[in-house]
Amino acid sequence: MKKTSIITLTTDFGLTDPYVGMMKGAILSINPEARIIDISHMVKVGDISHAAGLIKETFKFFPKGTIHVVVVDPGVGGDRRPILIKTENYFFIGPDNGLFWPIVSSTKHAEIIHLTEKSYFLPHISRTFHGRDIFSPVAAHLSLGIDPFKMGRAITDPVKLDLPVPQQNGGILSGQVIRVDNFGNMITNIRTQDIDQISGKSGIGIRVGGLEINGIHETYTDEKEGELMALIGSSEYLEIAINLGRACDRFGGGSENLIGMEVEIISGLK
Amino acid sequence: MKKTSIITLTTDFGLTDPYVGMMKGAILSINPEARIIDISHMVKVGDISHAAGLIKETFKFFPKGTIHVVVVDPGVGGDRRPILIKTENYFFIGPDNGLFWPIVSSTKHAEIIHLTEKSYFLPHISRTFHGRDIFSPVAAHLSLGIDPFKMGRAITDPVKLDLPVPQQNGGILSGQVIRVDNFGNMITNIRTQDIDQISGKSGIGIRVGGLEINGIHETYTDEKEGELMALIGSSEYLEIAINLGRACDRFGGGSENLIGMEVEIISGLK
Amino acid sequence: MKKTSIITLTTDFGLTDPYVGMMKGAILSINPEARIIDISHMVKVGDISHAAGLIKETFKFFPKGTIHVVVVDPGVGGDRRPILIKTENYFFIGPDNGLFWPIVSSTKHAEIIHLTEKSYFLPHISRTFHGRDIFSPVAAHLSLGIDPFKMGRAITDPVKLDLPVPQQNGGILSGQVIRVDNFGNMITNIRTQDIDQISGKSGIGIRVGGLEINGIHETYTDEKEGELMALIGSSEYLEIAINLGRACDRFGGGSENLIGMEVEIISGLK
Repeated sequence: MKKTSIITLTTDFGLTDPYVGMMKGAILSINPEARIIDISHMVKVGDISHAAGLIKETFKFFPKGTIHVVVVDPGVGGDRRPILIKTENYFFIGPDNGLFWPIVSSTKHAEIIHLTEKSYFLPHISRTFHGRDIFSPVAAHLSLGIDPFKMGRAITDPVKLDLPVPQQNGGILSGQVIRVDNFGNMITNIRTQDIDQISGKSGIGIRVGGLEINGIHETYTDEKEGELMALIGSSEYLEIAINLGRACDRFGGGSENLIGMEVEIISGLK
Repeated sequence: MKKTSIITLTTDFGLTDPYVGMMKGAILSINPEARIIDISHMVKVGDISHAAGLIKETFKFFPKGTIHVVVVDPGVGGDRRPILIKTENYFFIGPDNGLFWPIVSSTKHAEIIHLTEKSYFLPHISRTFHGRDIFSPVAAHLSLGIDPFKMGRAITDPVKLDLPVPQQNGGILSGQVIRVDNFGNMITNIRTQDIDQISGKSGIGIRVGGLEINGIHETYTDEKEGELMALIGSSEYLEIAINLGRACDRFGGGSENLIGMEVEIISGLK
Repeated sequence: MKKTSIITLTTDFGLTDPYVGMMKGAILSINPEARIIDISHMVKVGDISHAAGLIKETFKFFPKGTIHVVVVDPGVGGDRRPILIKTENYFFIGPDNGLFWPIVSSTKHAEIIHLTEKSYFLPHISRTFHGRDIFSPVAAHLSLGIDPFKMGRAITDPVKLDLPVPQQNGGILSGQVIRVDNFGNMITNIRTQDIDQISGKSGIGIRVGGLEINGIHETYTDEKEGELMALIGSSEYLEIAINLGRACDRFGGGSENLIGMEVEIISGLK
């Protein structure tokens, strides 16, 4: 894999505290040429599933060799392991709590290293902020070309993450809302190929929150302003949207209430 | 124009979703040396006027050759055109929906290109996220030195944007609030030169929301703490402010209510 | 000190307005190779103590030679001085209003320069935005290797900042909450060494908001889920936390109410 010095950061640290700045400083102190790219620091606090979905959707748009650091780490300082994962094209660094399971479980060659070699950490390691003291310095050393296998020992038992998957029952495919985006679009865990399996996209109805939607559109402007619609979004997942409106408002608001809401696809309608 | 690899981003994507990260990844995959600078991702969703004002105020502080990508794109996937604009000193890339009209209409040499050449886009173009699939890759290719005229064909009919302009009626100049900033300052669309036209800055009164303000100050500390005042802000627009306070709170709060509020300047007072 | 081109930004400008983008543009127009790192733009508006604490906690994680620009500047345009501070390893640039006092007062060799040389500012200096017109261009020129002593004249009377310090009274050490972080942790101004002075860490009790906590833990997972606890955080300050919970909610909410809340440490308990 070609070496790059691009390091992305995804955390639940928010943008008000000094924590993100400290991570960037720790990286640049080791590799002043590192190029740090924020993916998001607004992951819901402690929400491993949210962060796992975010990095799974995003990592592959970066150049080969990119180092993705993800720190959503409610178990920091306990016995959860710090890990580095090497896939064919990318590196991932963070706590071993399931964050990377969606990537590991869908990748052919994922090598996982339990980070134990303290010379690649900051000299003083706090018990509460491994994002700064372990993950950032490891990413920086890796970006300098250090062999990751010198940083610890290979393991084969990473923590798994049990994400809900759509269930098919006769002509009905049942999934759920996993994210509500900045536009109020309700993104589900139902992928294009899931839908293709139960039928073509014609003759399809969607049931969500007591409402019914006919058919699957291709883009927001395919429907009249203000009309509820379903479409396949830019990450190839089914989403519920409103052209020039906020779908989530139609179902009683914020993402807090809507994550996990059932979405059913019924085929064979006429 | 000298080539730089600086690419700025202005969007209404917020900082929670993966969309901004995907754009950055798409850029870096084509030009790993590109230097990406966030202007803001907090544009009010779908608010073309807000984004148009933001980039109009900001673009000229960047070095010549900077590529400004702006994505507020409620018509994505419909028949609105993706465009690239080349002015004497800058490039602008985004949807043809009026975003760049304030810049184009005040620039002598603006060449506009309808982006049609798919080899400069991502291989797979979604119908809902041209920020990632068209605008980012085009910006990256441009930063590598590709001739923009190879990316599509010149057009001369960009979509215009009808922004409110101050009206003069006798000794009264009538403008409106266009932005409320992080400090609660209410920024209007009235420029220094508009005021100069009706009088000198002395003998001037400002009427806003039923209150009257005497004269125009030069900076916040020119007035006592807590006192309502008018001044010419750092972008040369008249603003209503309070030294060490939030002017917007004096008028009933958030930017939602205050955008569009009438501000009148009356000259010839003694 | 080795020259680096890393410039960090800490402001109260928020992320919605064009102000941060303008600062970055002003820097890059002078030094297109400058590497700009955001620490935070979410400092509470005008809160000098907050910003002073933030940069004090963060600056030392950056490589030697880093230029830290901090703009929380309620006195902009008045008679407060723009300053540059050179310590053994870092530069600091911003208004002379106490922002850097915690650093200056704990550093052996701090040289302070009143910035007066206009050739290192933008050509037009507004009265309301010195972050863009003075501090950013000075940082950019400094990153190009300009001698800071050419930028103004040395002064020895910087504005001081009176931050509350813990008070010891017999066996009781009394400090206060200075920050509530993104996780709801309540960070105090009581340092490890303050605690060490009154006793070892055993036999210690903490009184806060009418509640009592026994002992000081090392990390969040040392306590049961949902249990209130005290620990030494990653910046070596005592904090009140809840494993997998938000301590601030236990005391009636937001940081607005909790900053300044008294926290007492009582030693000699059995």
